[in-house]
Amino acid sequence: MFCVDLNSDVGESFGAYTLGDDEEILKHVTAVQVACGWHAGDPMVMDKVVRMAAERGIAVGAHPSFPDLMGFGRRKMMLSFAEAKNYVKYQIGALSAFTKTYGIPIHHMAPHGAMGNMVQDDVQLARAICEAVYEIDPEIIVYYCAGAVLGEEAEKIGLRTACEIFADRAYEDDLSLRSRKLPGAMITDEEESIKRCIRMVKEGKVTSYSGKDLDIKGDTLCVHGDGPKAIAFVKRIHEEFTKEGIAIQAFR
Amino acid sequence: MFCVDLNSDVGESFGAYTLGDDEEILKHVTAVQVACGWHAGDPMVMDKVVRMAAERGIAVGAHPSFPDLMGFGRRKMMLSFAEAKNYVKYQIGALSAFTKTYGIPIHHMAPHGAMGNMVQDDVQLARAICEAVYEIDPEIIVYYCAGAVLGEEAEKIGLRTACEIFADRAYEDDLSLRSRKLPGAMITDEEESIKRCIRMVKEGKVTSYSGKDLDIKGDTLCVHGDGPKAIAFVKRIHEEFTKEGIAIQAFR
Amino acid sequence: MFCVDLNSDVGESFGAYTLGDDEEILKHVTAVQVACGWHAGDPMVMDKVVRMAAERGIAVGAHPSFPDLMGFGRRKMMLSFAEAKNYVKYQIGALSAFTKTYGIPIHHMAPHGAMGNMVQDDVQLARAICEAVYEIDPEIIVYYCAGAVLGEEAEKIGLRTACEIFADRAYEDDLSLRSRKLPGAMITDEEESIKRCIRMVKEGKVTSYSGKDLDIKGDTLCVHGDGPKAIAFVKRIHEEFTKEGIAIQAFR
Amino acid sequence: MFCVDLNSDVGESFGAYTLGDDEEILKHVTAVQVACGWHAGDPMVMDKVVRMAAERGIAVGAHPSFPDLMGFGRRKMMLSFAEAKNYVKYQIGALSAFTKTYGIPIHHMAPHGAMGNMVQDDVQLARAICEAVYEIDPEIIVYYCAGAVLGEEAEKIGLRTACEIFADRAYEDDLSLRSRKLPGAMITDEEESIKRCIRMVKEGKVTSYSGKDLDIKGDTLCVHGDGPKAIAFVKRIHEEFTKEGIAIQAFR
Repeated sequence: MFCVDLNSDVGESFGAYTLGDDEEILKHVTAVQVACGWHAGDPMVMDKVVRMAAERGIAVGAHPSFPDLMGFGRRKMMLSFAEAKNYVKYQIGALSAFTKTYGIPIHHMAPHGAMGNMVQDDVQLARAICEAVYEIDPEIIVYYCAGAVLGEEAEKIGLRTACEIFADRAYEDDLSLRSRKLPGAMITDEEESIKRCIRMVKEGKVTSYSGKDLDIKGDTLCVHGDGPKAIAFVKRIHEEFTKEGIAIQAFR
Repeated sequence: MFCVDLNSDVGESFGAYTLGDDEEILKHVTAVQVACGWHAGDPMVMDKVVRMAAERGIAVGAHPSFPDLMGFGRRKMMLSFAEAKNYVKYQIGALSAFTKTYGIPIHHMAPHGAMGNMVQDDVQLARAICEAVYEIDPEIIVYYCAGAVLGEEAEKIGLRTACEIFADRAYEDDLSLRSRKLPGAMITDEEESIKRCIRMVKEGKVTSYSGKDLDIKGDTLCVHGDGPKAIAFVKRIHEEFTKEGIAIQAFR
Repeated sequence: MFCVDLNSDVGESFGAYTLGDDEEILKHVTAVQVACGWHAGDPMVMDKVVRMAAERGIAVGAHPSFPDLMGFGRRKMMLSFAEAKNYVKYQIGALSAFTKTYGIPIHHMAPHGAMGNMVQDDVQLARAICEAVYEIDPEIIVYYCAGAVLGEEAEKIGLRTACEIFADRAYEDDLSLRSRKLPGAMITDEEESIKRCIRMVKEGKVTSYSGKDLDIKGDTLCVHGDGPKAIAFVKRIHEEFTKEGIAIQAFR
Repeated sequence: MFCVDLNSDVGESFGAYTLGDDEEILKHVTAVQVACGWHAGDPMVMDKVVRMAAERGIAVGAHPSFPDLMGFGRRKMMLSFAEAKNYVKYQIGALSAFTKTYGIPIHHMAPHGAMGNMVQDDVQLARAICEAVYEIDPEIIVYYCAGAVLGEEAEKIGLRTACEIFADRAYEDDLSLRSRKLPGAMITDEEESIKRCIRMVKEGKVTSYSGKDLDIKGDTLCVHGDGPKAIAFVKRIHEEFTKEGIAIQAFR
């Protein structure tokens, strides 16, 4: 039987600022990664979103970042190995206070923004993050984007991994996402987008921008909750996947 | 048999800034409370001091604070109940990433600075902090200063408590510390200071500034590691307590 | 001839977070106070809003705050006199980099949130803020809420002041705003609200919640830009004031 | 007549943390660059050090940085052009509140840490910083390290520049400082060090690590105040320069 996890970033509000509609997106996903206060989120936001996720039985993961609230964690920072490792540890630990409160484990970890981009090919950073995860709890699953060294480093260290795929993005031949600055980066046709998803999940294949057939593991599909169009798309994913016999559930 | 715990604040360095000599003070105490990054401390500092404490078998506690790095957590802030509770939770959680790494539990919690002063009589704040502790781990011991409502709230909620005493400070009739702004606040005579400590631990009594004999629980004695004089005093405490048959060990 | 200034808080977005519609509100006001990065705002936001205000000839003021981004500056903090003074100075200075860039002066200063509430009766804090303003530039006008000691302290030190009034709030007998927690705090009838404004500006009088006629200076009216209803109300203010012969212009 | 400026970084303390001995170093230098709160420094520290510098007639410059207090501004961050420009502007503006208070101008600007290293060859970052300086005050002098594109960009835009030299560091053939990770990076012989300084100032020449004679402008010599040895060295610089007929004064 085929399974896929639907994941989304949540808990990105901060203080007086609201970003995203966590309550709505939680109705449609099976796993969420929660911002830990370094690029977004604060303890009030974390408490609320973890509580809501726990009530719905949604798997909660950590979404650690560089210390860059002003830049929403989207700017590269050059940290030492020990800094990256301890910063990620701190953030997962902070989140664990809330998962403990609601009696659930930290299910997974997915680095945010620039940190997430850098672990596509920065082995040292990927290794530092994986060591942080492993030393806190070797049961935490590492979510990585197709092609990222993060996945390899996680497996080397003995962590379970889930490969994250994207419905609306084109892939290059090395499985990296085609840059948004280039033409053809986005899959704008909804039907094509859904067909690609189904093929990634069921066949483990995707056609790259250049036309090559690539192997890909479709373990978890990243979805967004910003706006009615995004929510409508997630609902269609549910319908189409069900028709195709793909179960939607958190990655185990 | 009489027992006392010697505790100290540690992990108060931050980034390029060093404060206190954690390595030295760890040679002399049985419990430390570690800053969690909100008034002092950062993940690098936390990792190092928790590792050193674990290696020496010293009990590690959390030292949460208001979010006020610029003021070292020494300035009163008016938080809501939920803010105080979630802020303390976040900080204990962050620390737990490091205690887990080194295979030790969070032994105790003692609020820092202005937060620590306010729980002398702010029932709501004290309650918020205790709920935070309890919901993370009901085994964590709450360290409170003699006379503080923090102790009462902790016991009401079902947490164990340890009463913290001070060697060099005078007490008012309500067991609060005599303000440093007033004459007679400090016990400057070392012999008298040690005698007072021994009496607090063995007899559970202390003479207030006004001359009254007060009941006090001497569970844990706060010591400092700043400078050779402070360290020399801690060494004398060890000697004199041993002569008096007082065992020095972390509070259980 | 009667004059009134229409002012609004702007520049409260931060990084990836948007708060308020600065572009829209700038079409309707004569003066804005810009957040300086301590409770809201960042250098990108400050640059943009100061540029837009300068292009429209709108007076730009500073909106300093306690250092509390997570609480949007709405929580009381107990600072020393020197801390309050230097913190306000820093923020006005930071803003001046952008006003200089666009060739305009810092027109006024109005403390934000909890700092703004506290200067209603905290003489020391009010004095500290006024000294900060005066030492940077004695031409900066202090905006204060009716009844606040901030106005008195500003005048004592030799600063010009403008008294800020509110269209939708009831006043107590001491000119303080009636607490939102109490019934009758809000003036919900739009016609009544506008009549009260006109009377405050032209007659210098307002009827308190208890029914007393109070003296009040209506120099500058605080307006909001959040939502179409707020904007519609500001437009009506413009119309009605024009009919009444009240010129709408920045306070001089 | 030959002139040289002696400069030092100051104002690097923060809150409860003390770094460097500003009072001592101010006795020996002619110009200081003051941390602006983003990698170090806070408004209390800035106020104190600017006051002390103004009292002694020492030229005060800004020492802006990446927003990285935890890393002391020593970690590379990838900012956009507009971010770098506005961040530097904000910091210079903040400092100007204190220079205005004490009636002195912002004399110069020198980027700190990783930002300072990156403008050795990052033209975009150098340009962004120079635009920030120019738009606030075209009289501010840009201090740059020998060989840096920062100097070129400053001159292109119409800013005056001063070339900073180091007494204790070896130069590569492109005038960059030899990396501390390589042998021979430090000039450890005090006599040689002073001779090199005198030659850089009087002849505009320095011998590179590889043995080449390079052209260099010795406008301002960077000195340190950390520890008695550093202060003793600065005193010798004063003596030897005086013997050689080199006047020690702020760069004009």
